Amino acid sequence: MYVVKSPLSEADLKTVSEALQGALVDLVDLSLVAKQIHWNIVGPRFRSIHLQLDEVVASARTHSDTVAERASTLGVPPDGRAATVASGSGIGATSSGWVKDTDAVGTLVDALGAVITRMRERVLATGEADPVTQDIFIGITADLEKHHWMFQAENA
Amino acid sequence: MYVVKSPLSEADLKTVSEALQGALVDLVDLSLVAKQIHWNIVGPRFRSIHLQLDEVVASARTHSDTVAERASTLGVPPDGRAATVASGSGIGATSSGWVKDTDAVGTLVDALGAVITRMRERVLATGEADPVTQDIFIGITADLEKHHWMFQAENA
Amino acid sequence: MYVVKSPLSEADLKTVSEALQGALVDLVDLSLVAKQIHWNIVGPRFRSIHLQLDEVVASARTHSDTVAERASTLGVPPDGRAATVASGSGIGATSSGWVKDTDAVGTLVDALGAVITRMRERVLATGEADPVTQDIFIGITADLEKHHWMFQAENA
Amino acid sequence: MYVVKSPLSEADLKTVSEALQGALVDLVDLSLVAKQIHWNIVGPRFRSIHLQLDEVVASARTHSDTVAERASTLGVPPDGRAATVASGSGIGATSSGWVKDTDAVGTLVDALGAVITRMRERVLATGEADPVTQDIFIGITADLEKHHWMFQAENA
Amino acid sequence: MYVVKSPLSEADLKTVSEALQGALVDLVDLSLVAKQIHWNIVGPRFRSIHLQLDEVVASARTHSDTVAERASTLGVPPDGRAATVASGSGIGATSSGWVKDTDAVGTLVDALGAVITRMRERVLATGEADPVTQDIFIGITADLEKHHWMFQAENA
Amino acid sequence: MYVVKSPLSEADLKTVSEALQGALVDLVDLSLVAKQIHWNIVGPRFRSIHLQLDEVVASARTHSDTVAERASTLGVPPDGRAATVASGSGIGATSSGWVKDTDAVGTLVDALGAVITRMRERVLATGEADPVTQDIFIGITADLEKHHWMFQAENA
Amino acid sequence: MYVVKSPLSEADLKTVSEALQGALVDLVDLSLVAKQIHWNIVGPRFRSIHLQLDEVVASARTHSDTVAERASTLGVPPDGRAATVASGSGIGATSSGWVKDTDAVGTLVDALGAVITRMRERVLATGEADPVTQDIFIGITADLEKHHWMFQAENA
Amino acid sequence: MYVVKSPLSEADLKTVSEALQGALVDLVDLSLVAKQIHWNIVGPRFRSIHLQLDEVVASARTHSDTVAERASTLGVPPDGRAATVASGSGIGATSSGWVKDTDAVGTLVDALGAVITRMRERVLATGEADPVTQDIFIGITADLEKHHWMFQAENA
Amino acid sequence: MYVVKSPLSEADLKTVSEALQGALVDLVDLSLVAKQIHWNIVGPRFRSIHLQLDEVVASARTHSDTVAERASTLGVPPDGRAATVASGSGIGATSSGWVKDTDAVGTLVDALGAVITRMRERVLATGEADPVTQDIFIGITADLEKHHWMFQAENA
Amino acid sequence: MYVVKSPLSEADLKTVSEALQGALVDLVDLSLVAKQIHWNIVGPRFRSIHLQLDEVVASARTHSDTVAERASTLGVPPDGRAATVASGSGIGATSSGWVKDTDAVGTLVDALGAVITRMRERVLATGEADPVTQDIFIGITADLEKHHWMFQAENA
Amino acid sequence: MYVVKSPLSEADLKTVSEALQGALVDLVDLSLVAKQIHWNIVGPRFRSIHLQLDEVVASARTHSDTVAERASTLGVPPDGRAATVASGSGIGATSSGWVKDTDAVGTLVDALGAVITRMRERVLATGEADPVTQDIFIGITADLEKHHWMFQAENA
Amino acid sequence: MYVVKSPLSEADLKTVSEALQGALVDLVDLSLVAKQIHWNIVGPRFRSIHLQLDEVVASARTHSDTVAERASTLGVPPDGRAATVASGSGIGATSSGWVKDTDAVGTLVDALGAVITRMRERVLATGEADPVTQDIFIGITADLEKHHWMFQAENA
Repeated sequence: MYVVKSPLSEADLKTVSEALQGALVDLVDLSLVAKQIHWNIVGPRFRSIHLQLDEVVASARTHSDTVAERASTLGVPPDGRAATVASGSGIGATSSGWVKDTDAVGTLVDALGAVITRMRERVLATGEADPVTQDIFIGITADLEKHHWMFQAENA
Repeated sequence: MYVVKSPLSEADLKTVSEALQGALVDLVDLSLVAKQIHWNIVGPRFRSIHLQLDEVVASARTHSDTVAERASTLGVPPDGRAATVASGSGIGATSSGWVKDTDAVGTLVDALGAVITRMRERVLATGEADPVTQDIFIGITADLEKHHWMFQAENA
Repeated sequence: MYVVKSPLSEADLKTVSEALQGALVDLVDLSLVAKQIHWNIVGPRFRSIHLQLDEVVASARTHSDTVAERASTLGVPPDGRAATVASGSGIGATSSGWVKDTDAVGTLVDALGAVITRMRERVLATGEADPVTQDIFIGITADLEKHHWMFQAENA
Repeated sequence: MYVVKSPLSEADLKTVSEALQGALVDLVDLSLVAKQIHWNIVGPRFRSIHLQLDEVVASARTHSDTVAERASTLGVPPDGRAATVASGSGIGATSSGWVKDTDAVGTLVDALGAVITRMRERVLATGEADPVTQDIFIGITADLEKHHWMFQAENA
Repeated sequence: MYVVKSPLSEADLKTVSEALQGALVDLVDLSLVAKQIHWNIVGPRFRSIHLQLDEVVASARTHSDTVAERASTLGVPPDGRAATVASGSGIGATSSGWVKDTDAVGTLVDALGAVITRMRERVLATGEADPVTQDIFIGITADLEKHHWMFQAENA
Repeated sequence: MYVVKSPLSEADLKTVSEALQGALVDLVDLSLVAKQIHWNIVGPRFRSIHLQLDEVVASARTHSDTVAERASTLGVPPDGRAATVASGSGIGATSSGWVKDTDAVGTLVDALGAVITRMRERVLATGEADPVTQDIFIGITADLEKHHWMFQAENA
Repeated sequence: MYVVKSPLSEADLKTVSEALQGALVDLVDLSLVAKQIHWNIVGPRFRSIHLQLDEVVASARTHSDTVAERASTLGVPPDGRAATVASGSGIGATSSGWVKDTDAVGTLVDALGAVITRMRERVLATGEADPVTQDIFIGITADLEKHHWMFQAENA
Repeated sequence: MYVVKSPLSEADLKTVSEALQGALVDLVDLSLVAKQIHWNIVGPRFRSIHLQLDEVVASARTHSDTVAERASTLGVPPDGRAATVASGSGIGATSSGWVKDTDAVGTLVDALGAVITRMRERVLATGEADPVTQDIFIGITADLEKHHWMFQAENA
Repeated sequence: MYVVKSPLSEADLKTVSEALQGALVDLVDLSLVAKQIHWNIVGPRFRSIHLQLDEVVASARTHSDTVAERASTLGVPPDGRAATVASGSGIGATSSGWVKDTDAVGTLVDALGAVITRMRERVLATGEADPVTQDIFIGITADLEKHHWMFQAENA
Repeated sequence: MYVVKSPLSEADLKTVSEALQGALVDLVDLSLVAKQIHWNIVGPRFRSIHLQLDEVVASARTHSDTVAERASTLGVPPDGRAATVASGSGIGATSSGWVKDTDAVGTLVDALGAVITRMRERVLATGEADPVTQDIFIGITADLEKHHWMFQAENA
Repeated sequence: MYVVKSPLSEADLKTVSEALQGALVDLVDLSLVAKQIHWNIVGPRFRSIHLQLDEVVASARTHSDTVAERASTLGVPPDGRAATVASGSGIGATSSGWVKDTDAVGTLVDALGAVITRMRERVLATGEADPVTQDIFIGITADLEKHHWMFQAENA
Repeated sequence: MYVVKSPLSEADLKTVSEALQGALVDLVDLSLVAKQIHWNIVGPRFRSIHLQLDEVVASARTHSDTVAERASTLGVPPDGRAATVASGSGIGATSSGWVKDTDAVGTLVDALGAVITRMRERVLATGEADPVTQDIFIGITADLEKHHWMFQAENA
């Protein structure tokens, strides 16, 4: 039914909308994974990492909103439902139950690493098709890589 | 491995932890569904409902955090991962793609109604086992029922 | 015409909606009485009680909004019009004109006492029918009793 | 008993105090009527008008306080009790029960119109007797007329 | 030397500038008198009036700034030096040393009364010459009269 | 098509609406002129005047909004489009390109002077027809004259 | 007279300064058009769109300031005067008088669409000449396109 | 001398006041113990736990105020003097001097555990006698148990 | 075990640490005494003094934290446990139960007087040994003496 | 009549109270002089110094309050009335009428210089009699000297 | 020892890390130079430029933190020690002692110009190797060039 | 050229200015060293110390500004350039590259210890020459010693 008149050609729009949908799924899942560990972490560094994880959650929620609204802006309906996220996320499975603090840091290093790798591919893929979307991906990547550094430094 | 010394008997703990886990799944899904519609809504009432949906998201996120941390507090690891949410939520399936504003309101009426019914059962189920948890469920129910009223009034 | 699907049985709804309507009338009147004295008080303790009365007004306004919206939430239209309040309030008649500070305190002790007595009856009446509404009445009672204590201590 | 030394002559004081008492009654009733509709409105424009009505309530409450304290300042005890408001208000009767959004807007257009007409008469009546009071009425009229425009535009 | 091109005729300017200079002196003195009593008050109502006096100081300082800058705006240099204030104020002499709380209230009733009388004369004197300045005087009078009421109510 | 029921007679409305439309055009142009100089000013006093000009812009934008909404309130559609402003403003032509700081101050003295003269005529013209509108013009004039003083003092 | 030493070559500067001047005119006009409709809109969605339009105004004002100061930064005096805007804007003529809410949304969809098309051309034109300016245009385009989506969704 | 007319029977009042006095002593002591450790802790986790302890202090201070004012409200004078706290607290003796971070966490786990056990007994004891007081105890228990979880997770 | 390398000689350290420990005990007790009266005061000046006492509590809490952390800074573990406070405070015994407002003020005059006398001795005792600690004591004394004045003025 | 029991001997009190009274007069006059110039300054540096003078006013008002309340604290009634200030200030006479910006700076350099010289004498005079008062004077001197530097740098 | 897994190839990393280290040194030095002049400036424009310089300091500090943390994020330890800055900065030597306001502005024009030139080279150098880092450099350049314009305009 | 008229004798000025210049250099270096470690720290306590270091940076920056402006106030131009800091700081050399968290704490203990020792010598040296400056040094020492305690406690 409804069509937003997109400023992009059809081919460009296909490239860009796939990248946006992929990023949305990764970012929603990142927010769920970080919350999961925020609730289940135990160990001497509990409080420090418990707080740090909520900063990742806040980042992931803000970025997912930016990405989804960018898709709508280009006329492509975004999909962030639980089942879509469960089947399409680039983050590996997280185990249930309590998590030792050292393992918690490791899980975040891996999860952020996986999302960053895919996000950099999206930066490359969208530069020509839509520099506006690319600029959004660059800013998100910068922020995720900073979180990545901090968790790596934490387990050094 | 790790055990928080629970102030509850084993039987009470079983009752309460099932209620908490169920509530967590419902609330996380509610936050995802409300965001999904926030992004996909179209129609003359777009802006008004777009804003209203973000208030539901904020409520659902706050309540899910309260519920999950209550579970941890009682020594039961909460599970809020995407797959668990996708398979266990009490909210019916939401369709993908653009949503007319009238349908958006209807979807929220249904989703909130489903969660409220289950939440009221949890209020009854936990009163004897743990009045502290029951008090949390009562507060959440009051808040969800207020959102429910507003969306019903909206489509009157 | 319009019907909110109530989560309560018809019998329970009758009990709860009568309690809510009664509380609404009492609380709106309390806000008007406290403002009336706020404007008409004279005497050496003028400023101190003038300010204290505005705190009662703020409490009464907030609580009346909570109670009225709870009624709407359950599908019962609340009635807070001037004539309804004038005929149905549980607070005795207040005289017009200037009020000495000592009498002002006495008036509030009586007004709060009358409302508290009726509110406690509502706490008892609604516990079984709707624990969510009861929880709201308990919170309001606690707040009104705190104001009551302060005015009593003030005239000791 | 108590007399504030008024800076006005007796005749001027009579004119001004009648105007102030009339304005007080109108404004308290306006706040009650707007709240009544705030709670009972239904229809597609529910949220937008629900919020807008609370802005009218806030205006009416602030103005009624200014007017009542101006009366006290001139040595005339103001009367804002429920019965006084119910019998003396310039706003026509409001029906009870649910209100469709279009009717809600119409009710406000009428209520505001009635109060504005009387307020403009008070501006004329008090200019000579007390320019300070007149200045207060002018400010209130400007604010009420702005609300009036918005509700009229709303039903255009 | 320097001349601001005034929008008023010379005769009007004379009327207005005398009123502004007189008001400036009264308001600066009011701020000094209120501070003096703020520091020297003793008695059971100490704290309540100590705080109330600082609200008078704040009012007087704000109004004196408005009045002085209005004079500059019309091209007339304002004079708010200590000696000018000491010799030209409309407020009677204040005694030094400790002041009982009842006397403190009485002093403020007198001081505010004296300034209000003169300010009302200025409202009448400037209406034709410069409605902008008159409007400023009306607003100041309303505020001073409200403080006046409160101190009178306090000693009732 | 649409008609707001105006509380004014037709003759009064004509007077008032012409004054409001004229004021709107002057104030929008004042905001554009002040921004133009804000961007193009050079010289030793650059920073100080660059900041001061943004305060004029803020004043002009706020006042133009007040004036336009007053027109709508009275049922007269305001016109603040670029072409209307370009042809109807009371401010003389401003040259393009860099502006020395001393000239910048001179331009503002002239622009403010032109608008003030016309605004004072509007104060006189509307007093009988609509004291509410007149009150708005008086407040705007007081504010513009204060800016006028400051720029004059600046070039003394 | 005055020359900022530009870090760009003459050819690059010409490209960039034309783009900046064009963007400035479009953005100032967008702020005037959005305000015009903000004042003249009527219809059932009045309040919701009235508020939304002020968000467009805020965006357009902020972006016009960024663009004009970027021009000054590169040594090119920006021109945002009413006549320049009236003759050079990329937005089509807007009619005067009341505007139905549906037409209001349509006008904004068109106005934003026209500006976005030109802004995307400027993104392409400036990438090589000055990546700093291009980066500013990209950010502005992302913001305008988001407003564009919302108004389109509103009329779906 | 002074008697607040309590809404409770004598027997109920005895039950409730003992519970309130006991809770007051526990909570004041909890605030002193947590501050003691806040000042004396040493070890690698110094800063993290130093900050966390101040959150316990803030909770304990807020809760002790609520409990003491509830006692006054019911007409029972609360007793929070140092000697009363030193002899009646349910928290075991704390040693003086520096405390290793691991021991600090252990001390808090024990202290919170002791207070929670007694608080839960008070929830059971007061439910019939005064549901308002019970509701206050439930809220405090929920908060203390959350702190308890965090310190237990910290030493896992 | 743990030793902070103190910048003071052993003799100086003994002098300073005794003064700090004494001050800590006095200040913690002052906070408990002021809270005790805050809860138990009755009489016409109830509200005014009830609020004033919480300002003393806030001062005492802040100062006790400063003093205890200064001790830790110098390598001396501070002791603020209930039993230590109960046995070592310089404030005389406070009676339990309700306190008339006049007596409440008298109690504070005495309590503050006692602490100030001892604090002034500490100022003299520490000046040579550690001017940094002395400076802290001077600041605390200035603040306590200001509270002392206010309570004395209150009972004049 | 009223006596605050001073912690100082009679001789010390005489020294200290003379110093405090002198400082109060100087500081009140400084606030009046700075305001006088704030209103009367003209010249190219108008805005910058106009703002800077208000920072001196704020400093002088805060310090005069501290000094006067310190006098009351020691049982000596402070005197800050206009006539006392006019006759006892250490600042030389200020001329009336417009002041060129350069002269304005010169006046402040002189006024601040005069007050600082006297304030340093008070630092020396009170060190033995009351180190608490001395500490207050030292803080004030530091702040006044910083203002002094800035005005000197301004006329370099 | 410690290695952050960089998402860049070794060659790219070398390019990017050299650019980041160079930028860090320039930005730390810029913050020190701007502070130096902030403290040593004299002349009629003292206050205006004194304040403006602190805005440069704030910019430089924020940007240096962003750049250093970006280096850490990529696994390269940043070096911002005083000696490194003293030997490697791109800003020429600054003389010690007082600086006339005109010279102060000149110094900043030169310092900013030098840093900007090098920063633009870094924008070109890093675009291919790491678009995320390039994006950071572009943002910093835009901000520095804006400061540059302002100081140039200031000495025009 | 320019001379601020110092309130000190030449001999006193020499003493004081040397102390101020030394303190300035130490404090600027402390801010650079703390930032250096803030960026390069790795290990399990990364986050906690990363944040704590920024509090040291904030302290050092504030104190260096106070000290430099005190020098200017006394007429002595401060010198805080990179080369001056690099050659004159009292803090030993810091190594480049990653720093383990335990070593990071050790470095800060040493750096703060070195600055404190020199700062205490300055307290002794300036007491007679200028009590105002001494008072500033005392305040800075108290703050640095508190940071020192915390880092020592951290490595216990």
